[in-house]
Amino acid sequence: MREHTLSILVEDRAGVLSRVSGLFSRRGFNIDSLAVGPCEEPDTSRITIVVCGDDALIEQIQKQLNKLIDVIKVSDITDYEHVSREIALIKVNAESGSSRAEVMQIATTFRAKIIDVGTKTVILEVTGNCDKIDALEKLLRQYGVREFVRTGRIAIMRGSKTISVPK
Amino acid sequence: MREHTLSILVEDRAGVLSRVSGLFSRRGFNIDSLAVGPCEEPDTSRITIVVCGDDALIEQIQKQLNKLIDVIKVSDITDYEHVSREIALIKVNAESGSSRAEVMQIATTFRAKIIDVGTKTVILEVTGNCDKIDALEKLLRQYGVREFVRTGRIAIMRGSKTISVPK
Repeated sequence: MREHTLSILVEDRAGVLSRVSGLFSRRGFNIDSLAVGPCEEPDTSRITIVVCGDDALIEQIQKQLNKLIDVIKVSDITDYEHVSREIALIKVNAESGSSRAEVMQIATTFRAKIIDVGTKTVILEVTGNCDKIDALEKLLRQYGVREFVRTGRIAIMRGSKTISVPK
Repeated sequence: MREHTLSILVEDRAGVLSRVSGLFSRRGFNIDSLAVGPCEEPDTSRITIVVCGDDALIEQIQKQLNKLIDVIKVSDITDYEHVSREIALIKVNAESGSSRAEVMQIATTFRAKIIDVGTKTVILEVTGNCDKIDALEKLLRQYGVREFVRTGRIAIMRGSKTISVPK
């Protein structure tokens, strides 16, 4: 049982996301994170899914994904050297000047950007891997995290090897 | 017909994502972008969906989402002052020294980070709103974009107003 990162190329049509995520839920898998957006080809999207499971089970799911209409390609990039990133927006309480200064100090340490300062709250933008974002959120909890919005993880293999639409 | 940004708080259970995205596809809506990740409460996730549609139709969908099991709260933040962000990883061809230098120059202009340099390719990380990422990808196309991975958009309201789990 370990975390797998799947990169799935799909045709950009209504329903594809629900078919892909449905395949996981019918097998009782809870998706840890999911991100979907356009890719380098027109009318094609890329779904990045992070899910925990046995290697054999994930391999089975990959085969079933490949059989779905609109799925072009499925790759498990877990064992390849890759970079992963996500972004989070965090709204933190900062009613007094001193707590605001402290929150801003923490932001600097984590190379987070301050994107909004109000009379009662501050909004931070932070980019990085999962652990960095978790650590920052944990540290900010003492001030009161009012809202925490996070994208799913995206990942790309290092070097020139790619996961792209076969020509 | 215009773009709407919906922020949906859900219980973190298997199947919720497929039920939410299925509701859109059954009505023929194609989701432009979707991001899902943990939020400030344990066992709760936040789904941010960008979708195009008439105001009245989106309002209807919001009502239907609210009726779904596991959906805690649905908010359309389109008309509130908000900040939106996404992140993209772009693998670009850079086989010659001169094209590598040009790609790096463009990266600097867009405040993108170079996160990997190989003998044939360079990987850029860029954060921002949709338009900025589109503009950068368009500019890099002349060198050959090998892979383009993008998260869905996330958004947060400015100021102290929040979308959070009712206590």
